[in-house]
Amino acid sequence: MTKMSTFAGSYYHGYKEWYSGFSQTKKLLLLILFAQQGSMKEIRVGIIGFGTVGSGLAQALYEQQERLLRKFNVPITLTTVADINITSLPEQFQGVKLTNDAQDIFNDPEIDIVVELIGGIEPARTFMLKAISKGKHVITANKALLSIHGKEIFEAAAAHQVEVGFEASVGGGIPVIKALKEGLAANRINSIRGIMNGTANYILTAMTEHGTPFEEVLKEAQEKGYAEADPTYDVEGIDTAHKLAILMSIAYGQNVHLDHVSVEGISSIKPIDIEFAKEFGYRIKLLAISRNHGDHVEARVHPTMVPESNLLANINGTYNAILFNGDTVDDVLLYGHGAGMMPTGSAVAADVLDISRNIIAGSVNRVPSLSYLPETFTAPTITPMSELTCPYYFRVSVLDQPGVLSMISGILGNHGISIKSVIQKGRQDGEPVHVVLRIHTSNEDSVQKAVAEIDALEYCTEPTVKIRVLIEDA
Amino acid sequence: MTKMSTFAGSYYHGYKEWYSGFSQTKKLLLLILFAQQGSMKEIRVGIIGFGTVGSGLAQALYEQQERLLRKFNVPITLTTVADINITSLPEQFQGVKLTNDAQDIFNDPEIDIVVELIGGIEPARTFMLKAISKGKHVITANKALLSIHGKEIFEAAAAHQVEVGFEASVGGGIPVIKALKEGLAANRINSIRGIMNGTANYILTAMTEHGTPFEEVLKEAQEKGYAEADPTYDVEGIDTAHKLAILMSIAYGQNVHLDHVSVEGISSIKPIDIEFAKEFGYRIKLLAISRNHGDHVEARVHPTMVPESNLLANINGTYNAILFNGDTVDDVLLYGHGAGMMPTGSAVAADVLDISRNIIAGSVNRVPSLSYLPETFTAPTITPMSELTCPYYFRVSVLDQPGVLSMISGILGNHGISIKSVIQKGRQDGEPVHVVLRIHTSNEDSVQKAVAEIDALEYCTEPTVKIRVLIEDA
Repeated sequence: MTKMSTFAGSYYHGYKEWYSGFSQTKKLLLLILFAQQGSMKEIRVGIIGFGTVGSGLAQALYEQQERLLRKFNVPITLTTVADINITSLPEQFQGVKLTNDAQDIFNDPEIDIVVELIGGIEPARTFMLKAISKGKHVITANKALLSIHGKEIFEAAAAHQVEVGFEASVGGGIPVIKALKEGLAANRINSIRGIMNGTANYILTAMTEHGTPFEEVLKEAQEKGYAEADPTYDVEGIDTAHKLAILMSIAYGQNVHLDHVSVEGISSIKPIDIEFAKEFGYRIKLLAISRNHGDHVEARVHPTMVPESNLLANINGTYNAILFNGDTVDDVLLYGHGAGMMPTGSAVAADVLDISRNIIAGSVNRVPSLSYLPETFTAPTITPMSELTCPYYFRVSVLDQPGVLSMISGILGNHGISIKSVIQKGRQDGEPVHVVLRIHTSNEDSVQKAVAEIDALEYCTEPTVKIRVLIEDA
Repeated sequence: MTKMSTFAGSYYHGYKEWYSGFSQTKKLLLLILFAQQGSMKEIRVGIIGFGTVGSGLAQALYEQQERLLRKFNVPITLTTVADINITSLPEQFQGVKLTNDAQDIFNDPEIDIVVELIGGIEPARTFMLKAISKGKHVITANKALLSIHGKEIFEAAAAHQVEVGFEASVGGGIPVIKALKEGLAANRINSIRGIMNGTANYILTAMTEHGTPFEEVLKEAQEKGYAEADPTYDVEGIDTAHKLAILMSIAYGQNVHLDHVSVEGISSIKPIDIEFAKEFGYRIKLLAISRNHGDHVEARVHPTMVPESNLLANINGTYNAILFNGDTVDDVLLYGHGAGMMPTGSAVAADVLDISRNIIAGSVNRVPSLSYLPETFTAPTITPMSELTCPYYFRVSVLDQPGVLSMISGILGNHGISIKSVIQKGRQDGEPVHVVLRIHTSNEDSVQKAVAEIDALEYCTEPTVKIRVLIEDA
């Protein structure tokens, strides 16, 4: 990266050191002094964690440096990388300092922006808070951390008047956070619906296209690098829930925590469910859903029957898509790569540029981290899952004996659940049959109770698969 | 809107008047003074043109005022509306001054932001330039104006250190300008492909779904208010070309003008073309396309055969969608309403908020209007249409006589054009037949010459319909 004279750099950064203790008035007087020195400045970035995304960011900043200077005439320089696992950096980063100690980054007075890309809760949380306490702006792609300790981190950042950039935490390279915070600012967000995990979507897409069982596709995804060795977070919906909690916080100005989100994964989905879905004109997708009912908001992640005419039904492979409905703008959908070295690097680099602009313009936190001003945040008001109402798909596996269907429909009737259609399939000697029911809009609590009763029937050979159907309202 | 005391308002605005003549140093000293007065400020907005979008903006600012104050703690107040056609404002705007003279807006020293929503070239251009010359920030949805006089307007704004907001000029409520300028800043834009006109997309969708002829659907669209009395701009691709020119300017840092874009509309598309397209696995869409070849960039708008698996093939009705490919992020698509009172109002309101934040933070033009710094802009380097290469669909209408196909294929062969498949359809007594050809990737110049020769054949009963096929590269 284009470097300024050492004098200029140390001038600006030395100045920054003693500057922090001054009053607002003195700061402004100093700004005058500083402004008269011309453009003797650069923005210095340190990265903690040089894995996939860290390397992607470094590469993006390196490859785009000329373009970025055509957009913002202050050099953005990667000065330091901290990673406990690596001993050397790629050749193009030879001017960059490599350390195994993250302290070298947040203790470096010359670093303006600290990018945390190690993932997980600790030590990421401690590193973020330390960097913030040193007056550094921080950027992260760590959705787990933000959906669990977001409140603490955002409050610390507000107290130290630094920025938190987290565009890469939801939707990878898709500029979804900026769109929600700024582009849709003049909207009451009525709903959020999205495919926010590429691994789960890859698996469901492959199951849909080839009829392959879950376990087989997962293994293949692991071999191709689309799924991790421990795929729990991805296939059980937890990663999607992290992201939904973050989007809900921004959309509603509420401190939504991971624990507020009801989560079900896709590991119990069978090719036969996907077949039935197709017959009914649906695709099964792992969706994050939040509908805003005013005094309460839904927060749920689960496999969902999506009408095939809905755009979300047509988002395939590892792609992500997030659909917002705002009262002013109506539907807006954003689509792209939700993960990956360079796409995620693109989002982190956008945050670096955004924060750099604010540092230079003196407009830090011109947009509040979570869109709403911290003092206006309210406690979350989450719709209890038991109060949810939606249409359902049930697959009941039973031994084919006379009276079974009457038993099942009797139980449903007792719980006030009304059937839209029934198909019975798979009648082979000795094999259980699948009774597939489409259920009119019903209450989740009643559905849970009815399914428990059905599963307790002696004819029942395995737990009933219950998939919620997407409601396409605002 | 919540109003501050008149004293505070006039204090801030009076101050703003004499402030503009001062040196940078004095301005900063004054800022100190001002900062010490606390938050005695508001942002004042004037709207010129109170048609659909103007009303939508006013309504959005009114309905969202509480929400906006939770995001930005300075009141944004609509103070004046200028419109030559109206004599009263809706009841909720009773505090707003109504005038028939736009001068009342740009001559009002208390107005910070002027929103031009009258459309067309004049007097919109003059009003914008006057407002800019008075030191007002300007916002517009006027894509015709920007794609023709953008250079003049952006240069004037840079000279007067004011902002130009134009989110609503492309993609209506979709935050596509912000995504491109900021979210995708760290990308070389490899391509732009989009459906950017809701009227044309509505017509093509209805033709596809019901097989109805163009003229009939257009009439129905006019009755429903989806098409204007004079639909030329929409159906002939001109409106789409306005928008492509704007996006290209931002994407490449080049002054792209409407005249740089090659344009063909959809009025010659017949239901039979849509039927053939379906048979081949395509949908016909009016696309804006720009591919970046490094030393030259494509700029074209025309009906396009889009593979049905492509997301753009599945954007139906009045919706718009814009697909960018960036070297860092790969594909990103944004989808939503490209027009309409409230969606467009949402985009204009986002610009109002964005500029208001910059006014208060003292960070005007922290992001250059067209993403690249004005001094780095270059002259456009547009690929001549004659040098385009892509696959084609031809429908040749001929009298069914022996030797016709051999004549046609002979002409194509002479021009080095290779045929992928031929279907001959519609053989009825005395009626001309349709010879439908799919053409391998060929050069536009050769195609034009070959088609001219085919059309000159005595058997030819009407001009050959030629539709370019989408290339799905980066």
